[in-house]
Amino acid sequence: MPRIPFQDLYDEIHRVLAQIGLPEPRAALVARLFAENQRDGIYSHGLNRFSGFVTLLKTGRLDLHADPEKVGGLGAMEQWDGKMGIGLWNAHVAMGLAIELARTHGIGCVGLRNTNHWMRAGAYGLQAAEAGCIGICWANTIPLMPPWGSADVKIGNNPLVIAVPRRDGHLLLDMAMSQFSNGKLEVASRQGKELPIAGGYDRAGNLTRNPGDILASHRPLPIGHWKGSALAVMLDTVAALVSGGLSSHQIGQQTAEYAVSQVFIAINLTALAGKIGINETVNAIVENLHTATPLVAGEAVRYPGEGMLRTRQESLEKGVVVDEAQFAELRAI
Amino acid sequence: MPRIPFQDLYDEIHRVLAQIGLPEPRAALVARLFAENQRDGIYSHGLNRFSGFVTLLKTGRLDLHADPEKVGGLGAMEQWDGKMGIGLWNAHVAMGLAIELARTHGIGCVGLRNTNHWMRAGAYGLQAAEAGCIGICWANTIPLMPPWGSADVKIGNNPLVIAVPRRDGHLLLDMAMSQFSNGKLEVASRQGKELPIAGGYDRAGNLTRNPGDILASHRPLPIGHWKGSALAVMLDTVAALVSGGLSSHQIGQQTAEYAVSQVFIAINLTALAGKIGINETVNAIVENLHTATPLVAGEAVRYPGEGMLRTRQESLEKGVVVDEAQFAELRAI
Repeated sequence: MPRIPFQDLYDEIHRVLAQIGLPEPRAALVARLFAENQRDGIYSHGLNRFSGFVTLLKTGRLDLHADPEKVGGLGAMEQWDGKMGIGLWNAHVAMGLAIELARTHGIGCVGLRNTNHWMRAGAYGLQAAEAGCIGICWANTIPLMPPWGSADVKIGNNPLVIAVPRRDGHLLLDMAMSQFSNGKLEVASRQGKELPIAGGYDRAGNLTRNPGDILASHRPLPIGHWKGSALAVMLDTVAALVSGGLSSHQIGQQTAEYAVSQVFIAINLTALAGKIGINETVNAIVENLHTATPLVAGEAVRYPGEGMLRTRQESLEKGVVVDEAQFAELRAI
Repeated sequence: MPRIPFQDLYDEIHRVLAQIGLPEPRAALVARLFAENQRDGIYSHGLNRFSGFVTLLKTGRLDLHADPEKVGGLGAMEQWDGKMGIGLWNAHVAMGLAIELARTHGIGCVGLRNTNHWMRAGAYGLQAAEAGCIGICWANTIPLMPPWGSADVKIGNNPLVIAVPRRDGHLLLDMAMSQFSNGKLEVASRQGKELPIAGGYDRAGNLTRNPGDILASHRPLPIGHWKGSALAVMLDTVAALVSGGLSSHQIGQQTAEYAVSQVFIAINLTALAGKIGINETVNAIVENLHTATPLVAGEAVRYPGEGMLRTRQESLEKGVVVDEAQFAELRAI
């Protein structure tokens, strides 16, 4: 797959967004996020999703000009309405608000309703970490998996993000509540590959590593079986309550996934900086992981986000990997 | 197993704690928590742990008279030192502080360091829910499992709690990052039972349902494999940073698990009550789960905490189930 300079990728995406009529500064922000997702190796939410995003913008369901509006709150907690605007813009604004609240109150929490897909969840955790804060955020989604004890698709896979700032590279966890995303199942199925571990059930109700069988049954496995199912339910519930927005089952009653609910929490570490050595604490945790004996020689244990940071470094040095057809499609818009 | 009235169980536990010299009101609080854990069917952290707890109090490592002390913070976030006091007392005080902060600031966050085992993590989530708040809390632990990619025991199983208030029974998630706790593995091993799903690796590195093989290898499975491993690392990191306390690997350098770090977050829903119907939102989510077709006829899908609430109801009607030997041991102290 070819590599192109980050700036070229950004410029192409930005050109298209401006052409559609997305106003500044949000066209620049959305272009940066899509380009960075691709740069960081999160190919599921980079160019792969961009042409669909463009189509969505053109349908008129999303409001290209909407800004989130404050609808309630108290002190360090605020509730905002995303007004069916661009999900990436709304999420960036909301985490920015949480960071500002954390500067004043030590911690800030923003519930955001009536918003849309934010693409890569981890982007907003990294935003907080760049500002020196711990960032925690999650979203609900359309129902994508069955709750534990049923085969009916009734709950979202509700991605959860925790980011911690670190001078030599932030720690980042960005995980959905299913063991494998639908996107990963589709890619593996197309390539005729087995999953490395069981990723769901086949139609007969047996755990399987066959991705096609899981797509057919609509029964991806929640992480930790009953535990991930319960965590997905709780994240959805808290998101609906804090935002005052829709929960997964209500999103599922619509014709598509829109008007989702999200939560953004920032914790201001500089407020505690006199007491603790942030970098020392985090570096010691990283060091503990790096001294673990690898099961496979040469494959050292990594901290959450380490692999992503390596891909980023490579992308910046050698260019960002793009799918030739996807990049050609982008240039043709 | 015999059943005894809740009050009798509480009275016996309280008598022993008073006898050891635990001052009021903390003897009453600790007795209530142990008795409630047993009442709710959390047998792993009820009578089962009480005689060990008494032994611990008698060793003098814990300070029976210590109260947590505020050491820092800003606005809605505070950092407290548990002064090596009673873990259950410290955790109850800390969640109480987070709830008070949430009344003023909408959200409250307390980091607690130098504290000790809080027994049942969920108790402090329920405390927030009883106060009308969403409660989120977690703790780090001594290293209990390997990080993903290694067989070295290097990370904690760091339990995470999310509780949501609901008039007809709070929702409660209380889960460690390993698929099965050591306690569950030990019980299953003693009874010669296989686990319902793979719970870890044997010494040869194969996933197994044999609990004895997992205890021998010290390789319990994190929920969702690499995902639960990463979540455990992040929870530990945030707990160490927000509390300014020890992280799991540092706890592991001691002779036993003490001076752990915990985080308590409360979100004040009444601050948002004008905007949303809390009960309606949560009840609709519960209803969505209850309408899922069960895989096993008669075994309806449950919301997180539902099984626990049923056990509680039964305990209050018929008496609390106790192990005869454990109760005799309690009475003999």
